Amino acid sequence: MEETLLNYVRNIPEADRDAKESAKKRLDNLIKPPGSLGKLEDIAVKLAGITGEIKNDPQKKCILVMCSDNGVVDEGIASAPQEITFAMMGNFIKGVTGVAVLAKKNGADIKVYDVGVNSDEAIPGVIARKIRKSTSNIKLGPAMSRDEAASAILIGIDAVRDAKQEGYDLIGSGEMGIGNTTTTTAILSALTNTPAAEITGKGAGLNDEAHMKKIAVIDEAVRVNAPDAKDSLGLISKLGGFDIAAMTGIFLGAAYHRLPVVADGYISIASACLAVMMNPTVKDYLFLSHVSEEPGYLMYAELLGLEAPLNLNMRLGEGSGCPLMFEVISSACTVMNNMATFDEALAETGEEYLSKI
Amino acid sequence: MEETLLNYVRNIPEADRDAKESAKKRLDNLIKPPGSLGKLEDIAVKLAGITGEIKNDPQKKCILVMCSDNGVVDEGIASAPQEITFAMMGNFIKGVTGVAVLAKKNGADIKVYDVGVNSDEAIPGVIARKIRKSTSNIKLGPAMSRDEAASAILIGIDAVRDAKQEGYDLIGSGEMGIGNTTTTTAILSALTNTPAAEITGKGAGLNDEAHMKKIAVIDEAVRVNAPDAKDSLGLISKLGGFDIAAMTGIFLGAAYHRLPVVADGYISIASACLAVMMNPTVKDYLFLSHVSEEPGYLMYAELLGLEAPLNLNMRLGEGSGCPLMFEVISSACTVMNNMATFDEALAETGEEYLSKI
Repeated sequence: MEETLLNYVRNIPEADRDAKESAKKRLDNLIKPPGSLGKLEDIAVKLAGITGEIKNDPQKKCILVMCSDNGVVDEGIASAPQEITFAMMGNFIKGVTGVAVLAKKNGADIKVYDVGVNSDEAIPGVIARKIRKSTSNIKLGPAMSRDEAASAILIGIDAVRDAKQEGYDLIGSGEMGIGNTTTTTAILSALTNTPAAEITGKGAGLNDEAHMKKIAVIDEAVRVNAPDAKDSLGLISKLGGFDIAAMTGIFLGAAYHRLPVVADGYISIASACLAVMMNPTVKDYLFLSHVSEEPGYLMYAELLGLEAPLNLNMRLGEGSGCPLMFEVISSACTVMNNMATFDEALAETGEEYLSKI
Repeated sequence: MEETLLNYVRNIPEADRDAKESAKKRLDNLIKPPGSLGKLEDIAVKLAGITGEIKNDPQKKCILVMCSDNGVVDEGIASAPQEITFAMMGNFIKGVTGVAVLAKKNGADIKVYDVGVNSDEAIPGVIARKIRKSTSNIKLGPAMSRDEAASAILIGIDAVRDAKQEGYDLIGSGEMGIGNTTTTTAILSALTNTPAAEITGKGAGLNDEAHMKKIAVIDEAVRVNAPDAKDSLGLISKLGGFDIAAMTGIFLGAAYHRLPVVADGYISIASACLAVMMNPTVKDYLFLSHVSEEPGYLMYAELLGLEAPLNLNMRLGEGSGCPLMFEVISSACTVMNNMATFDEALAETGEEYLSKI
C-alpha cells in the first residue's frame, strides 16, 4: 500500500510556469492599477498554473466529505456522542446540513464517503469505503496501522480520480467525525512540538472540565505514540483519523490529477499540510478558504505559508467553507476573463489618456 | 438643504429587536453546534432586524457608483490624470471594469451617478446629478460649501429611494474619483487627530516623492480647514468630495428606507463612518465587505466597531468588493432558510440521539 501511495506522491506534476507568467501579464494590462485586485489576481494566476490555460472558469464543482469515527472519544473529549457522525452522514444525503445547503446554493455537488464510521448500517447514497469501524484510541496507542493509513489516503486519491472522470473541475474537502479536533490538535502538537494546552480549543462546545481532559489526552497521546514529526504517514497512523487520511489523499489526488482543490477549516488544513509535507508541489494546487475559529488553524496556515481570504469565525467543518471559496475563485476567473485590457478599452474609445494610468 | 437632510437623519427607524431574537432562536436550533457558523449567523440575525422577517433572501441587488472629481489633484497627489474619472465612468456603462464584471457575475446591477465629474460631456446611461465640475482644492480651503455637501448627500439618499422603488432589496456602495484616497485620508486625519504620515497610503501606485507630497498636502488641508471632528457635514464639506458625500447619503438612505447596505473599501467605509456619526442606528443596516489595502481602512473599521469578513488585499474601489459580500449575505440566508432544525431532522428520522448534540 505504502509503495502504491508513494508512486502517486512522486509523480505530482509541476505547475505550468509559462501559463502563470502569461496570466500575470494579462492581469497587469486590465483597466485597473496593477495588483489592485489583490488575491483575486493571485488566484487567477495560480489557476493558470494548474490548468495551463490563462482563462479558466470551473463550472462543475464537488465537495468530497470524508466521514469516520475516532476511538479517542472513549476518553470523553467530545461534546457530542459518537452516533452523531452516522446521523449527520444521513443528513448530508438529505441535503439539510450546513455544507449541503451552502453547496446547493453554489451549484456544487457533495459526495459523502464512509471511510470508518462506527456503524454496520449502510445509508443509500453514501459511498462505502470503510477501513474499519472507528480508529483505535490514540491515548493508548496508534490510531491505525501504517498500512491502514496508506489505504485511507488512497481512498481520497481515488475519490478525486473518480470526480475528475465525472467531469468535475474544482474540488472541495470536507469531513465529519466526532472527536476529530482532538486528533487534528494531537498532530499539530507533535508536528510543532507545542504543548496541547497552548493549541487546544473547545471543539463544538466543551465545558472547562472536558477541555482540561482533552488537553491531557492529547499530551498523553503524543507521548505514548512518539511520532516522527517529519513523517506524514506516521503522524496520520499514530495520531490521526481515517477522515484526515482520506482528506490528505484528496489534496494529493487533486495535485496528481491537476485539479484545483479547496481546504475547508481546521481538520482540512491539517490534511493539506500533511499532503504538502509529502510533496511540496501540492501547494500549487491548494486554496485555503476561511480562518477557522479553532486556535490551531493559524499555526497550520503558517506551516503552509498560505492565507485564507475569508474570516467568518466558522467552526462547523463538513466542508462548509468550500462553497464560499468557490465563489471567490469564480470571481477571480471573472476578472481575468471579462475585464477589458487597456488596449481593448482604447480600441473602443480611442481615448489615449487611458494609456497613461 | 441641511434641514431637509436632518429630517432624514432624525427619522431613521430602529432595527426590529423581536425579529432578531426569533432569528437567533432558529439559528440555535439548526443541526450544528450553536454559533458554529460564526458571522454567517450574525449576518442572518442582522438582516432579520432590518426587514423584520426571520427568513430573508435578497434577490434584486444594485451597486450605486458615485463618480466625481477632486480639486486637490492640482497638487500632484494622484498617480493617474483626472480624465480617468470620466473615462472609467464610460467603462462602467460598457460593463468592462472590475465592479462591472463582478456585479454581472453576481447577478447585481450597477447604477452610475455623475455627482461632480470634471467634464461637460454626458455619457448615455450615466445618471446626471452633477453638483459642479470637481470640488475645490482642499489644500487651499473647503472642498465645497456646506449646502453643496448636504445636496450631494441628498443625491445618495434619493438614489436609494429610487432603487427601492425599482424593487432592489440589497444595496452596494461604490465610487470613482481620481484623488479620493487623499480626501478620505484627510477626513481620517481630522477625525482621529492622526498625522497624515501615519495613515497615508500610496493610492493606486504613487512613487516615494509623490507619496511625501500627498502626506504634506493632507496635513496642510487639515490645518487650513480646521474642521470640527464631531461634525460629519463639516468634515465632508471641508475635506471631502462629492463622491464621499453621495455615498454618505447611500448609507443614510438605506437605513431610512430599511434596506441592507454593503460598504466596499476605503472611500466607502469613510462614508459609512460619516453616516453613522450622524445617526448611530445606520450601523444596524450596514455590512462591511473586505479589508482594503489602504492603511487607514482598519482605523475606520475600528471607529465603526465592525469587521469585514473578506481579506483579499484589494484596493480598486468602484464598489468591487460588494458583489463578493452579496454572496456571503446570500449564503447566510441559505443557512437560515434551508438548514434543518433538530426537530425537523428528528421528525424525519426518528433518531433521538440527534437531540443530544
